[in-house]
Amino acid sequence: MTAPVKVNLDEKLGAFRELWDPKIVAQVNDASVKLVKVKGEFVWHHHEEEDELFLVVRGRMIIQTRDGDVPLHEGELVVVPRGVEHRPVAKEEAAVLLLEPSSTLNTGNVRDSRTRDRLERI
Amino acid sequence: MTAPVKVNLDEKLGAFRELWDPKIVAQVNDASVKLVKVKGEFVWHHHEEEDELFLVVRGRMIIQTRDGDVPLHEGELVVVPRGVEHRPVAKEEAAVLLLEPSSTLNTGNVRDSRTRDRLERI
Repeated sequence: MTAPVKVNLDEKLGAFRELWDPKIVAQVNDASVKLVKVKGEFVWHHHEEEDELFLVVRGRMIIQTRDGDVPLHEGELVVVPRGVEHRPVAKEEAAVLLLEPSSTLNTGNVRDSRTRDRLERI
Repeated sequence: MTAPVKVNLDEKLGAFRELWDPKIVAQVNDASVKLVKVKGEFVWHHHEEEDELFLVVRGRMIIQTRDGDVPLHEGELVVVPRGVEHRPVAKEEAAVLLLEPSSTLNTGNVRDSRTRDRLERI
């Protein structure tokens, strides 16, 4: 056996540049920890069965919901409950840690040019 | 309906001082996001059924395993797989975000003065 391998978030963020293309960095129980770089406006969507956690690790972003905006700075997180329509938006590039079931599709109930059916593990 | 409420990690860390006493700050699917302050040596233990994620948000700590130490700085995470015996250790006070099933007991398979059967939500 070997000791578990740690994940350095800065190092992982240095390993890719694509926007709106989540990368899997760890697996915990039936959930994946993902990192995603965001800039601009994503698509309105919801996830039928899964809550989704957003933790901002660099910059700032807004999670828009039909009931109001949730502005997030570095070190802030929000959980979007299943079924709640939302749209991530960032004026400047930001980096976000996502936690959600491994099976979660990034665009939820909609398909879009940014839909990613398979995610890279980095 | 109201928009989901965000969690500011610094603010939550300012709300308690106890060591080795995880506080629940969010719920996502069947997992809890917890914050814990650590200093010194915890008890060796394992979790039979659950992987446990540690993300250091302040300071540094070491996750000791029987197969070697995993030193973690701020912005680094590790997942300890179920069944793997481990002991968190910190020379100086550090703050850690935990992600694990809501039912996870902090001392896993052992009972100890630091066992917490019920966690406060802050």
